[in-house]
Amino acid sequence: MTRWPLPDPMKTALEQAHLAADAGEVPVGAVVVRDGEVIASAHNAPRTLADPTAHAEVLALRAAAKALGQERLEGCDLWVTLEPCAMCAGAIAHARIGRLYYAAPDPKGGAVAHGARVFEHPQCHHRPEVYSGMGEEEAAGMLRGFFAGRR
Amino acid sequence: MTRWPLPDPMKTALEQAHLAADAGEVPVGAVVVRDGEVIASAHNAPRTLADPTAHAEVLALRAAAKALGQERLEGCDLWVTLEPCAMCAGAIAHARIGRLYYAAPDPKGGAVAHGARVFEHPQCHHRPEVYSGMGEEEAAGMLRGFFAGRR
Repeated sequence: MTRWPLPDPMKTALEQAHLAADAGEVPVGAVVVRDGEVIASAHNAPRTLADPTAHAEVLALRAAAKALGQERLEGCDLWVTLEPCAMCAGAIAHARIGRLYYAAPDPKGGAVAHGARVFEHPQCHHRPEVYSGMGEEEAAGMLRGFFAGRR
Repeated sequence: MTRWPLPDPMKTALEQAHLAADAGEVPVGAVVVRDGEVIASAHNAPRTLADPTAHAEVLALRAAAKALGQERLEGCDLWVTLEPCAMCAGAIAHARIGRLYYAAPDPKGGAVAHGARVFEHPQCHHRPEVYSGMGEEEAAGMLRGFFAGRR
């Protein structure tokens, strides 16, 4: 159980994950924040959108870039309920996200602390500060419930 | 110099790369092919679209998925003029691309044969067959010319 109040952006990311589950998508949500203001939020939607790149992070980054009218999101942070995969970690680097907060680790598909460890290679041109664990119980519980319900 | 005729999809990818250069974008082009038919083609356009994910590969995969109305591009191959980065390699895996053909290696930003080597981790749920080198001289020459012209 999380023993301190969750920061608002992680609450918003968890709400987005709930929306994903409601739509039959793997429950992952993401939020882009700048100076305490939510710039964009999104949930996982590859089936709904017929788009293999439509993970929560990619959708949130694209929406934030569109809202700001610029390719790079300097000064922005990304909050997401699950450890990003290689695609999303690469997108986070391209977007120049300052801080990445993710809730649950993903030993199977994650590429930040597992697998490809995208930010740890010299080829990675931008490495965000990474914080994990806030909201982990809530995010992981939602994922467990989702997959249990599909068996 | 390439000593054999380039396959048509790589010619199309190189034409897309030219279009990127004409638009002031780093010249990279990509094509999705199924059973000899071009399903989608695209060029690098992150500045033009204000989208940090708008690499040629991601745009071509998204367009192909939209054209076929499905998240996964089983039976499709991707042809691209430059070794994919971590983001694009991850997207290629998510899309279940069967064969990846890339022209020029990218020791600085590539994540197939360099850096994160996205397909080589047990966490990678789908690994395409990978072929490199066809069109390398043309693709690399275009990139050299582009960056030389910007100095």
